[in-house]
Amino acid sequence: MTPQLEEFRNLTRPPWGWTADHRRQRIGIIGATGAVGRELLSLLHAAGHGAERVECAARARTEVVLANGARFAVRELASLDTQSWDVAFLCTPSEVSRALARPLAQTGVRVIDLSSEHRMHPDVPLVIPEINGRELEGDVRLIANPNCTTAVAALPLAVLDRAAELEEVHVVSFQAASGVGASGLVTLAHELAHHAHDAALSAPASPFPAPLLLNVIPAVATVDAHGVSGEERKIMNELARILSRPGLPVEATTTRVAVERCHCVAVHARFVRDLDVDEAREHLRAAPGIVVSDDPHGPRPRECAGSDPVHVGRIRAGTRRKRSLCFFAVGDQLRKGAALNALQIAACLPATPSPRS
Amino acid sequence: MTPQLEEFRNLTRPPWGWTADHRRQRIGIIGATGAVGRELLSLLHAAGHGAERVECAARARTEVVLANGARFAVRELASLDTQSWDVAFLCTPSEVSRALARPLAQTGVRVIDLSSEHRMHPDVPLVIPEINGRELEGDVRLIANPNCTTAVAALPLAVLDRAAELEEVHVVSFQAASGVGASGLVTLAHELAHHAHDAALSAPASPFPAPLLLNVIPAVATVDAHGVSGEERKIMNELARILSRPGLPVEATTTRVAVERCHCVAVHARFVRDLDVDEAREHLRAAPGIVVSDDPHGPRPRECAGSDPVHVGRIRAGTRRKRSLCFFAVGDQLRKGAALNALQIAACLPATPSPRS
Repeated sequence: MTPQLEEFRNLTRPPWGWTADHRRQRIGIIGATGAVGRELLSLLHAAGHGAERVECAARARTEVVLANGARFAVRELASLDTQSWDVAFLCTPSEVSRALARPLAQTGVRVIDLSSEHRMHPDVPLVIPEINGRELEGDVRLIANPNCTTAVAALPLAVLDRAAELEEVHVVSFQAASGVGASGLVTLAHELAHHAHDAALSAPASPFPAPLLLNVIPAVATVDAHGVSGEERKIMNELARILSRPGLPVEATTTRVAVERCHCVAVHARFVRDLDVDEAREHLRAAPGIVVSDDPHGPRPRECAGSDPVHVGRIRAGTRRKRSLCFFAVGDQLRKGAALNALQIAACLPATPSPRS
Repeated sequence: MTPQLEEFRNLTRPPWGWTADHRRQRIGIIGATGAVGRELLSLLHAAGHGAERVECAARARTEVVLANGARFAVRELASLDTQSWDVAFLCTPSEVSRALARPLAQTGVRVIDLSSEHRMHPDVPLVIPEINGRELEGDVRLIANPNCTTAVAALPLAVLDRAAELEEVHVVSFQAASGVGASGLVTLAHELAHHAHDAALSAPASPFPAPLLLNVIPAVATVDAHGVSGEERKIMNELARILSRPGLPVEATTTRVAVERCHCVAVHARFVRDLDVDEAREHLRAAPGIVVSDDPHGPRPRECAGSDPVHVGRIRAGTRRKRSLCFFAVGDQLRKGAALNALQIAACLPATPSPRS
């Protein structure tokens, strides 16, 4: 294991590097009522962050009640003193992040944007702490959190890249209903409930282009004029950026499957240098944030839901023997794919107020 | 389109090349009560083959009743005069096919084995008629029908191979519950029915290693000491054989998903020669047995279930531009993946009795 990986090992278990100093910070969550916002609140709560030092914003004034009963008031953004925040998490659509992120950062708030808006901006680091956490050193004010599927694939790929230098990567995703947010889960539950009655299967306000239950939808997000889906473009671009491997050839196909939670990726990777399969397995086993599954028919999304790590299994040599490797990775896209990674980013930032402008 | 493809176009619509001469033949189906046997009976019935010229064998004496009410008596094999058959379909496990196929063929019966037993035997042609139907010329007595996932991938890949010569292929499968036979469907129905009650989700006699509903099982069949599943090995070996491309590098990952019927494959292919994506699409559109889907989020297994062709969509250039292509293909694994292909093979054989020994 490299020293860098060791350095970020504390981020992989509760309280995910969230120290007493971090708990004194004032945290703002914009878009707190969505699936990712709720997950972030629940992780902050589990890390011991007091509700009185968390401010939640969303379009409607309401309340977020966690499964354990913890309550967080939600207000309209305009009514909050955002300049009093130390860290802001933007769980918002890209266009909202575009409008809010830089002005907030300019007032001295450290902003972690979970939307795709800033991910490919050269002046905004795109960070998975275990991979490129060092990009958080210095006075960084705006940080982008990667796409949820990218994060699941990137964690094991970074380990293999360090070991044998990636030459080419093929990723096929199996993405959960909750990847689109709470409406995806509602739709899937509706389809499950009505299936037996053979009613119109697609839910009234389904976010999916077709019924999802007992189906596979072979494209996630809109498909561009070249036939590439938005999600595929993100995986290609973001993987190359997070791994600091510009120009790395990444073939990606993204699909939506009838799974509640956890994105899966089937990955075929090719290397510049030899990498023995047992050696690869040990590298992965030693890496923080990764759990290697020895189940010949695992890992599986149902069993991995609600867990922090990226689970990696089906590790085997490809047709190019030591120059290729196949594996299957599963990660909870609301955890490592979103809220957990964002919290880990925040835990790597100094827990002192940034210099106010 | 090549003349060869045109030649087999009559096999792609009912009655699938099944002529009046074929309908005079005596057909035997061994393993008639399973999912594939039933599908074959229903295709023969739809092609106008009289029930009185079909003999069905299975371990238990029973009856197969098709959805439209057609009835086929099922007897024990030992009670049937197999030497009176012109064509036998073996819808049997490999070990049963091993015992029965060659002795039957030696008595003059033309034997089509749907098991994996003979697929890699050099003296037994492994045939998808649209691809290598010419291997059926001459007095061929024993023919192997390919693996169901292989067939779905092979049909479009053969078209692309002819156009630009495949250099490497990556296949990730999404396989339906019915791929294991009727027990897969029963299990999935059980899981659907009991899900709402939160009962033990896995069916009592599930053929799957884990609950399938709301899950992805990332390996089909047993996994060997190298970490490769039996299904992956079949795809690698059979694709190279059917395409007459020994040594073609094929990376394969096979998964089981909660779909009733239809196997899907996400394919990334690389070529020796340039192939424009629009040209590739037109080649595929012109090929018999293939329907090109222009739905940006299709084709999907739910919608393709019960249909004959292999549906191909998401056709787009890969990272190597004209030297690579990505697509998603869906095929009913009981049709083109099994019973339909076997019937098409039989329709290519001479409809006259083979010389008896």
